[in-house]
Amino acid sequence: MRLYSTLHRLASLNINNIFKKQLNRCNFVTTRTLYISPYLEQWGKNKKHRNVKLNLYFDAMGDPQIETVLAPLRASVKEQGDKVRQLKADGAPDIDVKKAVAELKARKKILEDKELSLAPNVTFDRAKMEDLLKRRFFFDQSFAIYGGITGQFDFGPMGCAFKSNLLQTWRQFFVLEEQMLEVDCSILTPEPVLKASGHVDRFADLMVKDVKTGECFRLDHLIKSHLEKIAMDKKATQETKDECQDIVIKLDGMNKSEMAAVMQKFSMKSPLTGNELTEPIEFNLMFATQIGPSGLIKGFLRPETAQGIFVNFKRLLEFNQGKLPFAAAQIGNAFRNEISPRSGLIRVREFTMAEIEHFCDPNDKRHPKFENARDTQLLLYSACNQMDGKAAERITIGTAVDSGLVANETLGYFMARIQQFLVKSGVDPARLRFRQHMANEMAHYACDCWDAECLTSYGWIECVGCADRSAYDLTQHTNATGVRLAAEKKLAEPKIEDVVEAQANKGLLGKTFKKDAKTITDALAALNINDLVELEKKLDNEGSYDLSIGDQKFNLSKDMVSVKKYQNTLHVEEIIPSVVEPSFGVGRVMYAIFEHNFKQRENDEQRTYLSLPAIVAPLKCSVLPLSSNQEFVPFIRKISTGLTKVDVSHKVDDSSGSIGRRYARTDEIAIPYGITIDFDTLKEPNTVTLRERDSMGQVRIPVEDIATVVHNLSYSKQTWNNIESKYPKFEQQETKAV
Amino acid sequence: MRLYSTLHRLASLNINNIFKKQLNRCNFVTTRTLYISPYLEQWGKNKKHRNVKLNLYFDAMGDPQIETVLAPLRASVKEQGDKVRQLKADGAPDIDVKKAVAELKARKKILEDKELSLAPNVTFDRAKMEDLLKRRFFFDQSFAIYGGITGQFDFGPMGCAFKSNLLQTWRQFFVLEEQMLEVDCSILTPEPVLKASGHVDRFADLMVKDVKTGECFRLDHLIKSHLEKIAMDKKATQETKDECQDIVIKLDGMNKSEMAAVMQKFSMKSPLTGNELTEPIEFNLMFATQIGPSGLIKGFLRPETAQGIFVNFKRLLEFNQGKLPFAAAQIGNAFRNEISPRSGLIRVREFTMAEIEHFCDPNDKRHPKFENARDTQLLLYSACNQMDGKAAERITIGTAVDSGLVANETLGYFMARIQQFLVKSGVDPARLRFRQHMANEMAHYACDCWDAECLTSYGWIECVGCADRSAYDLTQHTNATGVRLAAEKKLAEPKIEDVVEAQANKGLLGKTFKKDAKTITDALAALNINDLVELEKKLDNEGSYDLSIGDQKFNLSKDMVSVKKYQNTLHVEEIIPSVVEPSFGVGRVMYAIFEHNFKQRENDEQRTYLSLPAIVAPLKCSVLPLSSNQEFVPFIRKISTGLTKVDVSHKVDDSSGSIGRRYARTDEIAIPYGITIDFDTLKEPNTVTLRERDSMGQVRIPVEDIATVVHNLSYSKQTWNNIESKYPKFEQQETKAV
Repeated sequence: MRLYSTLHRLASLNINNIFKKQLNRCNFVTTRTLYISPYLEQWGKNKKHRNVKLNLYFDAMGDPQIETVLAPLRASVKEQGDKVRQLKADGAPDIDVKKAVAELKARKKILEDKELSLAPNVTFDRAKMEDLLKRRFFFDQSFAIYGGITGQFDFGPMGCAFKSNLLQTWRQFFVLEEQMLEVDCSILTPEPVLKASGHVDRFADLMVKDVKTGECFRLDHLIKSHLEKIAMDKKATQETKDECQDIVIKLDGMNKSEMAAVMQKFSMKSPLTGNELTEPIEFNLMFATQIGPSGLIKGFLRPETAQGIFVNFKRLLEFNQGKLPFAAAQIGNAFRNEISPRSGLIRVREFTMAEIEHFCDPNDKRHPKFENARDTQLLLYSACNQMDGKAAERITIGTAVDSGLVANETLGYFMARIQQFLVKSGVDPARLRFRQHMANEMAHYACDCWDAECLTSYGWIECVGCADRSAYDLTQHTNATGVRLAAEKKLAEPKIEDVVEAQANKGLLGKTFKKDAKTITDALAALNINDLVELEKKLDNEGSYDLSIGDQKFNLSKDMVSVKKYQNTLHVEEIIPSVVEPSFGVGRVMYAIFEHNFKQRENDEQRTYLSLPAIVAPLKCSVLPLSSNQEFVPFIRKISTGLTKVDVSHKVDDSSGSIGRRYARTDEIAIPYGITIDFDTLKEPNTVTLRERDSMGQVRIPVEDIATVVHNLSYSKQTWNNIESKYPKFEQQETKAV
Repeated sequence: MRLYSTLHRLASLNINNIFKKQLNRCNFVTTRTLYISPYLEQWGKNKKHRNVKLNLYFDAMGDPQIETVLAPLRASVKEQGDKVRQLKADGAPDIDVKKAVAELKARKKILEDKELSLAPNVTFDRAKMEDLLKRRFFFDQSFAIYGGITGQFDFGPMGCAFKSNLLQTWRQFFVLEEQMLEVDCSILTPEPVLKASGHVDRFADLMVKDVKTGECFRLDHLIKSHLEKIAMDKKATQETKDECQDIVIKLDGMNKSEMAAVMQKFSMKSPLTGNELTEPIEFNLMFATQIGPSGLIKGFLRPETAQGIFVNFKRLLEFNQGKLPFAAAQIGNAFRNEISPRSGLIRVREFTMAEIEHFCDPNDKRHPKFENARDTQLLLYSACNQMDGKAAERITIGTAVDSGLVANETLGYFMARIQQFLVKSGVDPARLRFRQHMANEMAHYACDCWDAECLTSYGWIECVGCADRSAYDLTQHTNATGVRLAAEKKLAEPKIEDVVEAQANKGLLGKTFKKDAKTITDALAALNINDLVELEKKLDNEGSYDLSIGDQKFNLSKDMVSVKKYQNTLHVEEIIPSVVEPSFGVGRVMYAIFEHNFKQRENDEQRTYLSLPAIVAPLKCSVLPLSSNQEFVPFIRKISTGLTKVDVSHKVDDSSGSIGRRYARTDEIAIPYGITIDFDTLKEPNTVTLRERDSMGQVRIPVEDIATVVHNLSYSKQTWNNIESKYPKFEQQETKAV
């Protein structure tokens, strides 16, 4: 996946072309305001700010006081953005552009940090959430009893069920609803495949080693902490402090030799031992192993699932009866050997991805269902706005595609679907944006790329990438294998092609040149148009032609070869499809959902809970007998069997705590509905209490109905409001219970 | 998973104990016939053969003519079985027992091969099935455009959907219905974990290398093909032929030095180059890699998923509020670096497993739901019957557990559930048996183990292992980490314990011995009962005691230490739970289902299809408009949307072939139901044809009902018979179409 990939960092970017496209788009947007939806315009007018957003976070950004603080920072970004544009327009050397871009990113970062610091402080206590997730074993470090390994996590029963429900929802939402071709490919990948994809040469981070102990440090982390330490020193001059801060901000855009220079200037040593450090080393992030016993077949654990789809392109196209467009999808694990993983689920060594590769005609990237998505509003943080120091803007995807801001319908359709999926699964729409890659971030093959980013306590994190990868991957594998990964496209009308070719008299050539005859025939077939003109001329004028193959020369007479010209009628043309790739980092999506749904009860900060939507909640329902009274047992059994029959996962909690305490425990593990069996249940007509987690509302429902009701609630077939209006409210035990 | 594990081959077996248990069980069975169900007895009487079975395959085994052929082979196995028993009873040396067991296995193999060769020949053409699976991309070799790697497969759209439905069914059947704790653990596993589990030392196969080219050969394969070649030589004497055959049969039971001797005797060289070969090498089957950049943390790709559950035992027990029994489950990939994989999906380098670890009190292996399973009939091939040359017997699991043939209720319950799951998913019950491991096959930790085996064109293959692993794994990890992986069990009544311990005067020790004080306190706490008696005596008699720690001696006076005796009341005791492990090889189960459901139409051998049960079929339904008439389009859309709404995966096939040809295409990919839209559909009331794949029966159904009907059929809520009795039969186009 391109998402949080470092591939682009070291890729030899063809910045010029991409940048030009983006400039064009920016100009286009600047001269038209068409893409601002009426709804937004109205908001803008009300608040006298065009950038005012529809949600809490962005509301704050529209606050005049806050905007006053941000104004100089926005101006500073814009100044640098304009400078970059000017350099590009002037055709300045690449190195100058890169430097200017690094400075641009630095200024953007300052602006963004300030924005975040000024946003209304949503009460969020990460330590408290982590305590809950660990205590109730949503996930925890792998192999902890052996000391554990950083960057590896095991999902416990609740985390695993959440993950499994999230993936099942994904499959339903993308694979089944769009009739994609799902595949399940090998993880162990032989070297040549990843050589072709670019990973063997470029999928690397810079590190340095302690020359004595061999301890490794990720170079950017090392420089950052070293300079921060210097800047904190009381004796440091303001000048030094400024210099350090400046370097830290620009680190992300620095290359190997620039970082090496910084290391040298500040004579950095190992922070653990004080020993010398090696020169920066490019450390490939793939896990290597050997396939088979000989030790001769080198393989890697795949760093993304996408390649498995590309190498199967021919089979998939055939399965689809040769027709474009079609999409393939894959859910599976991928691996990256991070130098020093941190930030919990966000940067790990082993992770689950869900990737889609949509193959389409490079000249026709319309999408048949785009009209269904046209009105979906997205918060778009365009490359232009990033360069201009502006905030993200909420517009419809229809407008974004019409204006050219988003490259094509297919890309736009998937962006809308990604948002729908994320919100359905529990991502807070107010903390979700799509950020467009700027030219210098874009992998060399992508012609437009938008990351769905979620705002968390770690800042904005990329959760889903959505890129138009053009024909890059299929071309690479075609070149590496000689197998043409292409599709045939029926021409609107037949095309007539002039053919010029050398026609060999194979019999005579064989007789004359014996074993060299085949080489000669092949060489003749490979002649280009200029060679053929020359051949014809020589044969006409001189009666023979000297064909050079390597060091050898063969004299060919008129009887042996002639030049034929004729016309060919073509009904199809061969095209290499373009690929649009939505790529989900499942662990990151899960993490964002955890943060967005971690809540505390009003007036009781100790009572924390997770408000996961029922569709992804680990269990849909709890069954709580009021006490251990034996008369409750047949009801527990009946209700449990009924729930199982309609596929409602549930947990019977017959432990001895009060109902209130048990509700609190089930709230912690995100169970949305609770069924309580009490003494009234024993009376005819038998009824139970059904409680909803977020509102804590309760209703009384007949035992016969309960399984169906919970099923309908769990699979979004009915809302809690429906239920509350249909059944009597239950308040009797509420006070006692909680 | 212990299933197709070679761990046991190299394990140091504690044969004696296990063997004794098995002998006891055999005796028990021999003296009682209680475990033969009435149903079976009746069959036995009818056919005058006690071993007659209820199904085709085993019916044949009961045929008097066939039994005449088999009689001497059965006798030969029994003779050797008795010899093994006698050797054990006499306490003969291990080496003699092992040799006798190898001979026993050889004779068993001859019997089994003969049985299979005499079974009625079910028409099965493996090449034809493989052609279908490849052509319609159920699965195929990974990275084929790069030449491919043996033992690695990619699942295409239909294979992937089948797999995903199978796993979802498994999850529903085991995890949800039994409320198991599902986890999702890391694949990359640090070395110490697999050292403790025994895999680093013992998970190996024997191989030899070409001394010049380094080419590797799996030793048993090499010997087998070498000897087969010799035996085929026309000049070979009968004696040589017999010797070769004898060795080939015994190969499976040979150890390293025995195989080395065979190699030497026949002076085997590399079959590819004629070069010399190395001595046999134990090749560990795990894929090794390095975790992190330093190269210092060695890791492996897990060879089974089970260890992830064991290392999380504490967290899982806590999640279950400290209570036993509970079961944890995991679905995930595992890896083994086969020396030379073959046999398609059956022996691969990368595979999906679904494993359950049921933790229970070692003294109470009853299962609360055993009564529900009691009457399930299983085909059991006991260790005794294997030793006696008898056939497998069909009895109820209740009888098998009551008689002691199956070790306990929990093991028996899971065996019944495994069968129910396999049959539900498409395994032919007539080609399914449970084979008990004989003592020499059993891993050293297992106290009873039964493999669910499916009969395929490769013979009987193990698909699911079901073992009682006792406390082996938890004990190993406890020993390796010092973290006690144990549970607390409430005692029926409190237990009073005598305690004797040294009580140190820490203040005085500290003052006297300074930094050594802690070492002394620790050493005192570690004294055993004999030391304590000695200590007390010395203090009483001599007033002081010389405590030795390493080379040092410390003289302790009466003021510094005393011996205290008191009683302690215990309410709980610590137990290390036993583990019962059902372990599914998902690829093998899939392969068996493919074979058992590959069919040819009567009178048309070219029309092959897959009769997968709807619950696991890749797609549930096809939607086939009779022609490309535009009037059909709104109906296609309406039906497709309706099906999606009720979660019925389907495929619209609007290609131009005749309905009959399109049915044939959808039959090939196992789609159980087909909806045809024709000109009658356009008339009020709008109806469509629904066709069932296996019977090819067709009914006419209103468009309004169709989605619900197909949903109910797909999820076993209604049968095809129900539908046929409810809706009018449709025959009009049948002849035209097919």
